[in-house]
Amino acid sequence: MNGVLSCTRAHNFSAGPGTLPQSVLDEVRRELPLYGSVGSSIMEISHRSPEYTAIEASARSRLHTLLGLGDEWHILFLQGGASMQFYQVPLNFLPNGGAVDYIVTGTWAKKALKEAARVGVARVAASSEKDAFAHIPTDGELELDPDAAYLHFTSNNTVYGTQFRKEPESRTPLVCDASSDFLSRSIDLERYGLIYAGAQKNIGPAGVTIVLVRDEFLRRRNLELPTMLDYGTHAAKCFNTPPVFAIYVVEKVLGWLVDLGGIEAVEKRNLDKAKHLYTRIDSSDFYRGTAREASRSLMNVTFRLPEKDLEERFVAAAKSQGLVALKGHRSVGGIRASIYNACPPEAVTALVDFMDDFERTCG
Amino acid sequence: MNGVLSCTRAHNFSAGPGTLPQSVLDEVRRELPLYGSVGSSIMEISHRSPEYTAIEASARSRLHTLLGLGDEWHILFLQGGASMQFYQVPLNFLPNGGAVDYIVTGTWAKKALKEAARVGVARVAASSEKDAFAHIPTDGELELDPDAAYLHFTSNNTVYGTQFRKEPESRTPLVCDASSDFLSRSIDLERYGLIYAGAQKNIGPAGVTIVLVRDEFLRRRNLELPTMLDYGTHAAKCFNTPPVFAIYVVEKVLGWLVDLGGIEAVEKRNLDKAKHLYTRIDSSDFYRGTAREASRSLMNVTFRLPEKDLEERFVAAAKSQGLVALKGHRSVGGIRASIYNACPPEAVTALVDFMDDFERTCG
Repeated sequence: MNGVLSCTRAHNFSAGPGTLPQSVLDEVRRELPLYGSVGSSIMEISHRSPEYTAIEASARSRLHTLLGLGDEWHILFLQGGASMQFYQVPLNFLPNGGAVDYIVTGTWAKKALKEAARVGVARVAASSEKDAFAHIPTDGELELDPDAAYLHFTSNNTVYGTQFRKEPESRTPLVCDASSDFLSRSIDLERYGLIYAGAQKNIGPAGVTIVLVRDEFLRRRNLELPTMLDYGTHAAKCFNTPPVFAIYVVEKVLGWLVDLGGIEAVEKRNLDKAKHLYTRIDSSDFYRGTAREASRSLMNVTFRLPEKDLEERFVAAAKSQGLVALKGHRSVGGIRASIYNACPPEAVTALVDFMDDFERTCG
Repeated sequence: MNGVLSCTRAHNFSAGPGTLPQSVLDEVRRELPLYGSVGSSIMEISHRSPEYTAIEASARSRLHTLLGLGDEWHILFLQGGASMQFYQVPLNFLPNGGAVDYIVTGTWAKKALKEAARVGVARVAASSEKDAFAHIPTDGELELDPDAAYLHFTSNNTVYGTQFRKEPESRTPLVCDASSDFLSRSIDLERYGLIYAGAQKNIGPAGVTIVLVRDEFLRRRNLELPTMLDYGTHAAKCFNTPPVFAIYVVEKVLGWLVDLGGIEAVEKRNLDKAKHLYTRIDSSDFYRGTAREASRSLMNVTFRLPEKDLEERFVAAAKSQGLVALKGHRSVGGIRASIYNACPPEAVTALVDFMDDFERTCG
């Protein structure tokens, strides 16, 4: 557990759980082992205590501020990650005898589709699988069912480094797995019925899933659902013990986003970071982006080097210089730099500098 | 957030999330913001990294040591608390056309029964509801279905302060909600098919649920289950992002239990604490235990004072002296002292001393 690195914070490009703002970690540390005046840590108090309920209320209020949510939106803090939502969404919203549409843009979308197919008719409105998921289907590629209860899409794809530029065109309500780009940019809220996001990439540690659901959409859900899988249970009240610590950290990250200037400022910062990195990739033939240009993700920048062996050396050399977690997803290989909200521009600069050096030495 | 109390750790009798060992909190603090030599906090690394997988392996190994689990047991770290298990258990193990038995000893058992009844035939093998849940049904009171797929019981009842002294007699495999007394005493492992426990009372912070399931029992589960609700998914591999931080803290609490001397030593410590408190309650008419003596819980000690007004003064006066979270559950009132594993004997001594003083002054 010892060593030189133990005293320094690395530039962390982990795809998730991802990096958190340093100031948030410092505050968490300061509030251990005693939180405020409660005489214990935040982990040891009732979830019905005024101290904890104030934290949850603040998190909700910050989400309202950041996204401009009106009162028609319920904010739920659930568990089980996006994987649980893959099943919970169709269980609630795929009506008996009805159908739902899915845009298949990668691993996660396929998993979501699979769980929906257990519940009823789940249609593939479009898929980029034949293109090895290197692009996001255009609106023209979509074959939509006008009567579908919803259109599901995965706004950003961590494995393939692709991202929807804007919401897909559709007259049915959108349901979005926004786990890997939640609060990274502005969205067209009016289009959505439900948005879910595991926290561990853009807004906090693993262990809590944020679900935003519009009241009008919620009312359409099926009847007689298992209590814990019924979104209505959680919209009505704090039903059972929430993942207190994870929500406590999320509240701080939301505050950090507000302080940064809100979504507009965050979006600009994310655009600048991504542009810096993609410009470097495109400036020589040594590095080669894997996603098609129009579908490139601002969150997960995936690229290859001329040879697999060079990629391994790249990852190892980067690590030795304090640039960590750059290895691509085990299913596709290559390099992946995840530059979520909390990744500072300095980390991207350090990576670009390293890429320059590495190409000079090994290119 | 300021005040005298902010510098001192209170004696915390919270029913859950409950108190944690001071040494665990100190270690968590020391490992922020940098964990070992990874260059970031434990919250910011991949759940597939060697550093995190080592933590999970250690937690499993410590559970093996503490409970004497053989290789036939799977250890799962799930999410959603006991409330999710209320549904997941019958979904997996209530066979089509079969039945399951439930012993109803309070709020939590009733909730478990309700979810099972959604899946199929859930029988009430016994209920102490007519006795206001003041006792645990004896083996003689049980009306069991010999063909039931399992017999479900709630080993300890936080609201009513009752606890099974030993496992109920039955030839069918036991399924136990052990959320509020997990690892507090030895159990007859051979009798169980599955044991589940939300961590936030006896073994960690909120956000992770430990499930122990015997392989032979697991094999009996129903087919075609939703992926995340199929215990087989999680027994086979780490399927999705686990609640990393909560498991990290659990691993430390398990180490603390091992260092304390294992389950035998923990059980003796818990017996001594409970005896100290019940002896004080029984030593005058001023305090009156609410559970019948043979069913008294070693974890949640519930009692009344002569008047409601006195109970309110008791809670307030205790708080002013650093004894916190003594108010009974909102559904039953009175006083409740939760003295889970991590509650030190000194806290019980301080409470007994306070009870002496309070009776002298107000009795």
